[in-house]
Amino acid sequence: MQIDLNADVGEGFGPWTMGEDAALFETISSANIACGFHAGDPLIMARTLRMAQARGIDVGAHVGFPDRQGFGRRVMHIDTEELAAMVVYQLGALAGLARAAGCRMTHMSFHGALGNMVAADATLADPLLRAVADFDPSLIISSSSSRAIEEAGARHGLVVATSFLADRAYDDQGLLVPRKLPNSVIKDKQAVLARVRQLLATGMVTTYSGAQIPVTARSILVHGDTAGAVALAQTIRNEIEAHGGRVVPISRQQTSGFNR
Amino acid sequence: MQIDLNADVGEGFGPWTMGEDAALFETISSANIACGFHAGDPLIMARTLRMAQARGIDVGAHVGFPDRQGFGRRVMHIDTEELAAMVVYQLGALAGLARAAGCRMTHMSFHGALGNMVAADATLADPLLRAVADFDPSLIISSSSSRAIEEAGARHGLVVATSFLADRAYDDQGLLVPRKLPNSVIKDKQAVLARVRQLLATGMVTTYSGAQIPVTARSILVHGDTAGAVALAQTIRNEIEAHGGRVVPISRQQTSGFNR
Amino acid sequence: MQIDLNADVGEGFGPWTMGEDAALFETISSANIACGFHAGDPLIMARTLRMAQARGIDVGAHVGFPDRQGFGRRVMHIDTEELAAMVVYQLGALAGLARAAGCRMTHMSFHGALGNMVAADATLADPLLRAVADFDPSLIISSSSSRAIEEAGARHGLVVATSFLADRAYDDQGLLVPRKLPNSVIKDKQAVLARVRQLLATGMVTTYSGAQIPVTARSILVHGDTAGAVALAQTIRNEIEAHGGRVVPISRQQTSGFNR
Amino acid sequence: MQIDLNADVGEGFGPWTMGEDAALFETISSANIACGFHAGDPLIMARTLRMAQARGIDVGAHVGFPDRQGFGRRVMHIDTEELAAMVVYQLGALAGLARAAGCRMTHMSFHGALGNMVAADATLADPLLRAVADFDPSLIISSSSSRAIEEAGARHGLVVATSFLADRAYDDQGLLVPRKLPNSVIKDKQAVLARVRQLLATGMVTTYSGAQIPVTARSILVHGDTAGAVALAQTIRNEIEAHGGRVVPISRQQTSGFNR
Repeated sequence: MQIDLNADVGEGFGPWTMGEDAALFETISSANIACGFHAGDPLIMARTLRMAQARGIDVGAHVGFPDRQGFGRRVMHIDTEELAAMVVYQLGALAGLARAAGCRMTHMSFHGALGNMVAADATLADPLLRAVADFDPSLIISSSSSRAIEEAGARHGLVVATSFLADRAYDDQGLLVPRKLPNSVIKDKQAVLARVRQLLATGMVTTYSGAQIPVTARSILVHGDTAGAVALAQTIRNEIEAHGGRVVPISRQQTSGFNR
Repeated sequence: MQIDLNADVGEGFGPWTMGEDAALFETISSANIACGFHAGDPLIMARTLRMAQARGIDVGAHVGFPDRQGFGRRVMHIDTEELAAMVVYQLGALAGLARAAGCRMTHMSFHGALGNMVAADATLADPLLRAVADFDPSLIISSSSSRAIEEAGARHGLVVATSFLADRAYDDQGLLVPRKLPNSVIKDKQAVLARVRQLLATGMVTTYSGAQIPVTARSILVHGDTAGAVALAQTIRNEIEAHGGRVVPISRQQTSGFNR
Repeated sequence: MQIDLNADVGEGFGPWTMGEDAALFETISSANIACGFHAGDPLIMARTLRMAQARGIDVGAHVGFPDRQGFGRRVMHIDTEELAAMVVYQLGALAGLARAAGCRMTHMSFHGALGNMVAADATLADPLLRAVADFDPSLIISSSSSRAIEEAGARHGLVVATSFLADRAYDDQGLLVPRKLPNSVIKDKQAVLARVRQLLATGMVTTYSGAQIPVTARSILVHGDTAGAVALAQTIRNEIEAHGGRVVPISRQQTSGFNR
Repeated sequence: MQIDLNADVGEGFGPWTMGEDAALFETISSANIACGFHAGDPLIMARTLRMAQARGIDVGAHVGFPDRQGFGRRVMHIDTEELAAMVVYQLGALAGLARAAGCRMTHMSFHGALGNMVAADATLADPLLRAVADFDPSLIISSSSSRAIEEAGARHGLVVATSFLADRAYDDQGLLVPRKLPNSVIKDKQAVLARVRQLLATGMVTTYSGAQIPVTARSILVHGDTAGAVALAQTIRNEIEAHGGRVVPISRQQTSGFNR
């Protein structure tokens, strides 16, 4: 079993930092780098790319709404043509910095409110994934489970790799429960670890309502902005290896993930 | 004689417009598109690219300081490493939108205060042109005459194509006279046209001090944000053709320009 | 009859202009000045204040979402506590510039998507009008007709002055029809003028569905960003005076408006 | 002896935090609150004001360049009229939030690169302090020692209260040594404390060149964004009280400071 361990990184801005990227980079296999819209800026992006490159970690663009103050977590109603241009702008900016650093961007994912909206709305997923494909059809779409994204990816010839968010509650359709609901973010480390063990052992996750649903995942996402994230990432990695698995970025997986 | 006629375009932002891009596109051969730092935004960039593409006009990135409020015309002291990352971010963003639109970015130029600083300071020109070369060594650097930029371009294997700014006064070193000085921007259309004629006939320009210096130019820049810009551009184009020249973008010039 | 004629002004940003404020100031009695969130910046605010002051025109804060790129016309989901702080921030900024210029801010209004949301949602109108009252209970709230705003104003001791938007379609509850719907913005000048005449003569407006509803208005709003706005404003002013009315800002009205 | 202990606070932005404001508020007597240009945002400002109010701490506006990415530490060349409008905008915004919270803004200070430029340039200090006086002549200007600011304050009827920056090196004119020079920021806590003791005992400070110059100070500034700031602030407070002094905000000082 090969599974990717990825984290959202480069989420500082100007003088402000967030998360412990350098420590996370000891453990993860892929990095989702903020592109200056909801977080990040050119210098942080360039430095994060170099750190990832030095460790052989895959780099991808973490694309969000143009709202640093709300960290891209606020719903914004933006026309699709403009939103598609914003997505490509961010992809191009990170790809450009990667190219200048001598590495290649392998994947992209949607952040925050944009991510939730795309995952839940086929009429949004379709034009945005078409825009990604127009930019680079070899990019892997990293996403929490979403039929809208999977179908749009298939339509536009893109590989969609599902990521399991170990610390977020799922509804029975496999979508993330909104952050505003109680217990939608699982803060207890043992509970997070138990969910990872359940996935590794059974390929299932227990939903918010208590049901069990299968999760098709090639990747596990660690949230870097929570306290103890580094230790948790290491524990998850140990757990994967204890189950006989190997941590491998999606772009280099041969047989991989769960339920595939 | 082949000479490029280029203009700075896409200089609106959100609901605000500047210049008459659609009309200019009837006349020019290359477009320098603002990249969202001093002007422009993803939607404007995408639409401007499509307009240029429809007319077979070359597209380039017009790279500036992160200061829309000051339109990139205010000096900012930014560390070189950060500035280089800002340059590549903008190049990547426009190149990404161009790629998604199915066209290729052929050139780049520096805007406003950044442009003046790079043209006058070899210690800034060197790392920034190295950053451009790291991103894409095939990009043409379009610049007003500047020894700093020419030498840095040569060092980093970049083609530097000098552009003649018909409506800006030159000092005796061939650098632009700062906008704050009186008569640094030539607003009289007949005077601008006379300068173009002088260049076409003699390859020289009369400087702010009254001296005559040779100008090595493959391109003439029209400022799109001034009243009457469209008519002026057309008149310049007519003048070039009346001198037996042809308006051809730099990337497609075979023999070209003045004093080369 | 005394009626206010007001317009949204100061809607430029940095190098970009919008509308013909100087010409409008010949005609209107109150100015709603953008506060730097959806449009405007400190310099534009200061200059607009001075222009208004020189003409004896009342000045108010036009408060919007923090989204210049979308001109405050995009829905954003912002927590109420934060939104209330954003409202007071903008009020304070304009009041400060007014105070430094030696004039007094008399009123405020909500712009764009924020305006529509506040007008339609009592749970938003209440905390935001409380925030306005906490800042300055003598401020007049200028608003299109909205029961939510009127009731919240009454609860917090604020005077609410209804403004009639001559070029916007109304629904049968007196709320503005969303801009996205066809014919929600009335562009034909004769049609706009006919609506003003109807209001002046009968105190009624014909709604989107064709019904007639009474409009309680102390003010008529002219949109400055549409072509022909200046001529239209002057025509409306002439119409008011032809009906024996006088154009007077709300803060100085004695008997005023319609249906009061 | 009465001396003020003040700190720059509210320096987070959106999701990002900086410093330990809550802990600092146990020790200081005045808070300089960022106003959303170089740091801070409306929500952070409102919450910081409430925290200060709950502790009876004086609040002032910490006014900076419009450059969050550079934290207001980058030189920007902005025309004086525009800069004056930016200063008043920030003063008004914080004063407005203070008023809505039921407290009064007592002072203001300039941040970062703007602070250094104002302190060193009489032609900048004069119009900016005139703008402050136009806004509110009762505001106290809190500043590191600067003849330019003191003279401009005197001219415009403003009280200027000098603040001693215990962890920053001074040149022989009493201006701060630029941050870029080695040892301009004193990071060793014992060294900082020794400087405070020297000031308390002798009213003098040892400069970067080794000279001793008198410091006229009514206030000591603690930098909240450095590690150990809270402990250092408490130690400085203890030191003041051990010397028989009392920590009192400038607005309530009767006899106060050094060398006055």
